[in-house]
Amino acid sequence: MPRETNRRIVMKSRPVGRPEQSDFDLVEEAVPDQGDGEVLLQTLYLSLDPYMRGRMSDAKSYAAPLEVGDVITGGTVSVVEKSNNADFAAGDIVLSHVGWQDYAVSDGRGLRKIDPTLAPISTAVGVLGMPGFTAYVGLLLHGRPQEGETVVVAAASGAVGAIVGQIAKIKGCRAVGIAGGPEKCAYVTDELGFDACLDHRAPDLPERLAEACPDGIDVYFENVAGPVFDAVMPLLNPFSRIPVCGLISQYNATELPPGPNLLPMFMGMVLRRKISVRGFIQGDHLEMMPDFIRDMPEWIRQGRLKYREDMVDGLENAVEAFQGLLEGRNFGKLVIRVSDDPTA
Amino acid sequence: MPRETNRRIVMKSRPVGRPEQSDFDLVEEAVPDQGDGEVLLQTLYLSLDPYMRGRMSDAKSYAAPLEVGDVITGGTVSVVEKSNNADFAAGDIVLSHVGWQDYAVSDGRGLRKIDPTLAPISTAVGVLGMPGFTAYVGLLLHGRPQEGETVVVAAASGAVGAIVGQIAKIKGCRAVGIAGGPEKCAYVTDELGFDACLDHRAPDLPERLAEACPDGIDVYFENVAGPVFDAVMPLLNPFSRIPVCGLISQYNATELPPGPNLLPMFMGMVLRRKISVRGFIQGDHLEMMPDFIRDMPEWIRQGRLKYREDMVDGLENAVEAFQGLLEGRNFGKLVIRVSDDPTA
Repeated sequence: MPRETNRRIVMKSRPVGRPEQSDFDLVEEAVPDQGDGEVLLQTLYLSLDPYMRGRMSDAKSYAAPLEVGDVITGGTVSVVEKSNNADFAAGDIVLSHVGWQDYAVSDGRGLRKIDPTLAPISTAVGVLGMPGFTAYVGLLLHGRPQEGETVVVAAASGAVGAIVGQIAKIKGCRAVGIAGGPEKCAYVTDELGFDACLDHRAPDLPERLAEACPDGIDVYFENVAGPVFDAVMPLLNPFSRIPVCGLISQYNATELPPGPNLLPMFMGMVLRRKISVRGFIQGDHLEMMPDFIRDMPEWIRQGRLKYREDMVDGLENAVEAFQGLLEGRNFGKLVIRVSDDPTA
Repeated sequence: MPRETNRRIVMKSRPVGRPEQSDFDLVEEAVPDQGDGEVLLQTLYLSLDPYMRGRMSDAKSYAAPLEVGDVITGGTVSVVEKSNNADFAAGDIVLSHVGWQDYAVSDGRGLRKIDPTLAPISTAVGVLGMPGFTAYVGLLLHGRPQEGETVVVAAASGAVGAIVGQIAKIKGCRAVGIAGGPEKCAYVTDELGFDACLDHRAPDLPERLAEACPDGIDVYFENVAGPVFDAVMPLLNPFSRIPVCGLISQYNATELPPGPNLLPMFMGMVLRRKISVRGFIQGDHLEMMPDFIRDMPEWIRQGRLKYREDMVDGLENAVEAFQGLLEGRNFGKLVIRVSDDPTA
């Protein structure tokens, strides 16, 4: 149902450390009008992803940072409310990138229509969208898993990690996950079919990881950093690969961690074990999109690829949900249901 | 001229930190006899290379460590003194790997004949041997330099660094070297043709490196680590490549350096700038040897590739020379002249 006003969550101040409610403002404006060739979009689902924390910083990165006053960036699933664009009709469901707001006007560029008969439309920002493609590209292109190898991934019940481990299994690998707490670990092994999953809160993580990887680690899909990486390092095999996708444990850090400085030791291991480390962003590898679109729905249909959404109702709850995401409080792909899904 | 005895330098104790004379023993034995199918080799040149320090440690690595009592490992150029092997005649010059000793017996496996009419035979352990091949593989396979890019290499007057920068120039790149002291820097720019060379002892290295790399760094060929790497890090471009060949500044380290811990910051840069880091060993890429054998002598003949040897006389001086190598006291490829070169 159309709202009277457009709520927009903007950056009030650049967060230092943990983003606080006071760093954000919810402002209300009139719903905008679409001009010639434009469409009016209403947001149905908003994806919350760890990379957004980076956009709130002004460190040099692959994307320009948000400025104070900007609507927080984010992938969205929208419905076309009104259209002055021949390519779109009212009622069309589209993948968009309008961020943390109820409404937005678009000239149609960058919108991609979503077929609601194929899968729940929220998956367009999850398993069939950016997070799924991140897992697919990072593991297959940069991880290059070979049958019989061991793949380790942290945040293993999350939007990316869950897909990494399941694709590793599909490729004939041993998949070992790391997650926060027994409930998530049980889900990762029992539902997702990983060979093992360890609680990163356990004090004996290094020993347990070594037990779970009796043949060492061939691919470590890095999305958390911190103590998990420290436990992984000694187990890395010769010629192992480390796709670097994210470092969520570091995103709220305000200063360099104390010593000792592990960088020289790490580089020594990279040398002696001939390790490949590769930072990547899914958007640099769009040439793999056709394969992704072919493989993923098929794997889901076959029951070999499962996904879980952590759905939070209401745009007004986005900040709290985002804080939880950075602390691992979500369980599955975190999505904000901004307005009622007409296809559900 | 044949000696009466075989001098062998063996590891007396595993060095802790800087290798000391007391960690080595020079033992004398009878010159061995070659059996059926064997040859007696006399060492002419012994190559001293930083990797040997690693072999003296028992850290897990790509090669088994030396044990106490073992002759120190090393590439050598030898002359066949006596032969009971139909493939070799007395007087043949061969590339061998008999280590720090005057004589050795070989069944011929792993020996490669050297044609003394093509180049001075000592180059078989230098520009036309392992160090040259290391530079060639690391830069071309893992560095993937593109015309117009900036390539930075430290130890730029050394056996590997000098070749890296010159191949970078041949490939149309900007080559920036880092070396120890004004004499080496002048050689690197004036003789080797690098675009710039900076003294790593200068306190303002980070600023001077930034000036010398106005378009950032696309390839950093890592062979030293430590403060040079710290200066390189901020300048690394998106999609830059770091072939990791060596970490000479760390080889004598006995403990982890003090904090802060730079590893998370480095991994953050790898992620945001989509950097490739790859440890490598030249011996893993022998498929590139035919290209190497084709290119390198041709480049030398054309005057586009120069090399410099730091020749030290006498096996008895190997330990002191090796200490100097780890401290950057050599100037060019360090070679021990163990006995008179019959082809010189």
